[in-house]
Amino acid sequence: MVQLYGDERIDYLLAEENMRIIQSPSVFAFSLDAVLLADFTYVPKTRGKILDLCTGNGVIPLFLTTRSSVPITGVEIQERLYDMAVRNIELNQLDEQLEMIHGDLKDMPARYGNDKFDLVTCNPPYFPTPQSDEQNINEHLAIARHEIHCTLEDVIQSCSRLAKSGGKVSMVHRPDRLVEIIELFKKYKLEPKRMRLVYPKEGKEANILLIEGTRDGKPGLNILPPLYALTQDDQYTDELREILYGK
Amino acid sequence: MVQLYGDERIDYLLAEENMRIIQSPSVFAFSLDAVLLADFTYVPKTRGKILDLCTGNGVIPLFLTTRSSVPITGVEIQERLYDMAVRNIELNQLDEQLEMIHGDLKDMPARYGNDKFDLVTCNPPYFPTPQSDEQNINEHLAIARHEIHCTLEDVIQSCSRLAKSGGKVSMVHRPDRLVEIIELFKKYKLEPKRMRLVYPKEGKEANILLIEGTRDGKPGLNILPPLYALTQDDQYTDELREILYGK
Repeated sequence: MVQLYGDERIDYLLAEENMRIIQSPSVFAFSLDAVLLADFTYVPKTRGKILDLCTGNGVIPLFLTTRSSVPITGVEIQERLYDMAVRNIELNQLDEQLEMIHGDLKDMPARYGNDKFDLVTCNPPYFPTPQSDEQNINEHLAIARHEIHCTLEDVIQSCSRLAKSGGKVSMVHRPDRLVEIIELFKKYKLEPKRMRLVYPKEGKEANILLIEGTRDGKPGLNILPPLYALTQDDQYTDELREILYGK
Repeated sequence: MVQLYGDERIDYLLAEENMRIIQSPSVFAFSLDAVLLADFTYVPKTRGKILDLCTGNGVIPLFLTTRSSVPITGVEIQERLYDMAVRNIELNQLDEQLEMIHGDLKDMPARYGNDKFDLVTCNPPYFPTPQSDEQNINEHLAIARHEIHCTLEDVIQSCSRLAKSGGKVSMVHRPDRLVEIIELFKKYKLEPKRMRLVYPKEGKEANILLIEGTRDGKPGLNILPPLYALTQDDQYTDELREILYGK
């Protein structure tokens, strides 16, 4: 049996009936954004290597095991979350495919050398660092949500260095930062190739951005069909239900 | 009576029952893209000045007279189209509000000086210049569609210089060039603030991009609800029908 600490609980990983995940409302619980990134991203199916930065409790690597058989490594800077991710591997008996590293994403290019991964995924902190008095009082949540340990530029620079030439980098973020993301992708030789916008419901502005670039790729962006999260009656749309719970 | 030449004909301006437009299939006929830009763009209603670059037969200025009472100037490099635009002003008796200039958009900042317009709109050529043997054999259509007389960078640089600080620049283009557009907007101090994507129908990739920037604006992009052109039965959607034909 896997050990649980504090308010941790074991949840189902939604569509994946055989998978479980340890989470904690006060430390880290995965969001819709992680599920959408795992659905959106390109994956190398049988050859190559995947790296997930800002992995939290390892939710994206867990989801990606259902789409790929290649080795997947997660990197998490918070020891408490790293420890949860390690127990999630154990809980799902995925230690042959998954590996977790407790470390800073900025150190990974030096650790691995450049040009190593076929895919790098990342669900980074979305918000610039606020004044310390407005910052989330819960340190674990603050680090996951605010650019305390890494800026958007740190994240994109590391993703770019770690991706092979021709490899992919997939990220989920807020649409209001699309301009910065595109500028930083270009600065670090990641050509934006696929983008998808998620809208809370019809008639509302987009609130989630999914974007994928190719290291050293040729220009030309495809913008995929939009995804609506909710119907006008505030029910999950069929498409989101299928992503969340399977067919 | 206004003179017509060659295969020119007078069409209704769709939603605007009192307006007519001279067009010609072999020289220039306005597209859905122009209608969508005229619908999407911010307009100064009663004070200020509007400039429309690459105006063709003046379709965007004609549409904008229904949303604004400020003076609107169109600029067109092709004499044949400029002449059509002048006759369109006459046909609709709009010579108090509209003015057409036969000239190169690249010369307009020198003509007007920088920092002059509250809004600059543009529906520029979408395609890089092809090899001369693949180029559209019809010279008028080729100039309207390919970057023969102006590159995307020329267009955005001119738009930026002509807009007041705090003024808007609105453009329609292809989604596959979003990355270039954002880079050039930023290079010329136009901050992308509003974007809308148009999809031919549900489940298809976006095929029209509407984007608006503010000269010297603060970062932060809003991505408006998507617009679908057609239903699954290939009928205009209600929303497009309303844009085209009014309520």
